Amino acid sequence: MRNIKLTIRYDGTNYAGWQSQRNAKTVQQVLESALKKITGERVKLTGAGRTDSGVHAKHQVANFKTRSSLPLERIKIALNSALPNDILIITMEEASKRFDSQRCAKLKHYRYTVTTSRFVDPFIRHFVARFSYPLNISSVRRAANQLVGKHDFGAFKAQDGGERNTTVRTIKKIRVEKKSNLIYIDVWADGFLYNMARIIAGTLLEIGRGKLPENRIKEMFVKKERRLTGPTAPAKGLCLMKVEY
Amino acid sequence: MRNIKLTIRYDGTNYAGWQSQRNAKTVQQVLESALKKITGERVKLTGAGRTDSGVHAKHQVANFKTRSSLPLERIKIALNSALPNDILIITMEEASKRFDSQRCAKLKHYRYTVTTSRFVDPFIRHFVARFSYPLNISSVRRAANQLVGKHDFGAFKAQDGGERNTTVRTIKKIRVEKKSNLIYIDVWADGFLYNMARIIAGTLLEIGRGKLPENRIKEMFVKKERRLTGPTAPAKGLCLMKVEY
Repeated sequence: MRNIKLTIRYDGTNYAGWQSQRNAKTVQQVLESALKKITGERVKLTGAGRTDSGVHAKHQVANFKTRSSLPLERIKIALNSALPNDILIITMEEASKRFDSQRCAKLKHYRYTVTTSRFVDPFIRHFVARFSYPLNISSVRRAANQLVGKHDFGAFKAQDGGERNTTVRTIKKIRVEKKSNLIYIDVWADGFLYNMARIIAGTLLEIGRGKLPENRIKEMFVKKERRLTGPTAPAKGLCLMKVEY
Repeated sequence: MRNIKLTIRYDGTNYAGWQSQRNAKTVQQVLESALKKITGERVKLTGAGRTDSGVHAKHQVANFKTRSSLPLERIKIALNSALPNDILIITMEEASKRFDSQRCAKLKHYRYTVTTSRFVDPFIRHFVARFSYPLNISSVRRAANQLVGKHDFGAFKAQDGGERNTTVRTIKKIRVEKKSNLIYIDVWADGFLYNMARIIAGTLLEIGRGKLPENRIKEMFVKKERRLTGPTAPAKGLCLMKVEY
């Protein structure tokens, strides 16, 4: 069996997220059904990050096993030809037998993009969330720095997001940048709980507008209660930028 | 009567162009109907560039006359609130009585964006045209330089694009740039005939792939026959960047 690794870019606007589900169009399903036509096999894709409905990916990583002997480049072109124009295969390569895009991921980078402008630039409207209050960027940055490190992020996961194992994750780095009227919150972590990237963004924004105090972060780590953190920021501002192995 | 000048940005993907027409949604109509609700008057907008169906604008300019005494900022906010999120008013200012966005325009800048990649980046798919052949950029550039100056662009206008007056226009500057896998053709002219920007792009691309000879340009100017120039390049690659007065 070959094990094939893909890097995938998608505009998530018109999808109910990455993961297959009944009665909704997802990126995984669209890819699997295209791969079935190409390889003639029922293919099971494993994705590195289960992006939510409306979340985008610049470089999502996935892998699948196949008995097909088609050359890589031919699968890639056939796949890109079959896919709708909001999903694109960027790279395709042979991976070792043991490679699993989800379990082997060492570092994931998500970017949250938000503007406090009253109206959003039409050209990037699907990729930017709007926040209705003025933000103190220094305050956002100070709070962000408190998130860096190994912590229990139980307060930063969706309540319905069942987690089999631990809710401890390590954030390696957070960067908060303002470029003209866009604010980028970049988070690098060894893993993200369900909705964690969006709850981090929502929490930092509430702190930035002065609604939550900066020093509340420690309490969130200790008490692990979802009600202590900010709202889940809108999906369209989030993009999975890179997965490292 | 006040004369109000607007700068407007729009993603033209879902519009049948700028100009009002029956049975189709156009940018002008959407703006006029929003302005009617705000001012209580039937407003007639004059646009600087009649962008075609699917063509975008970064800074379209328009003006309208009104008896409304509402403050500018209030009209702007009300208008942006009423508009769909693919149209945005960037600036709004009082203009002199004689200002006419179309007749007073001195210089227009259009950008054509194209890629020769087999597949287009999903994030910018509505703003980039795909060209299926390899391009010799130096050849495109040499041909572009021949277009600069005051010429009869009769061969560069749609055959059905009735022109009341002369087909002589002056191209002040053309720039052809390649950045990673995108090619930008920027054209600055005192005016554009119907479809002229797209026929220029189509002609330069045919020259760049070696289908039309570089030295055919002179003949186009002399004979003024549409059949001598290249095809009309797809609308989605074109964007009205700026209008100067």
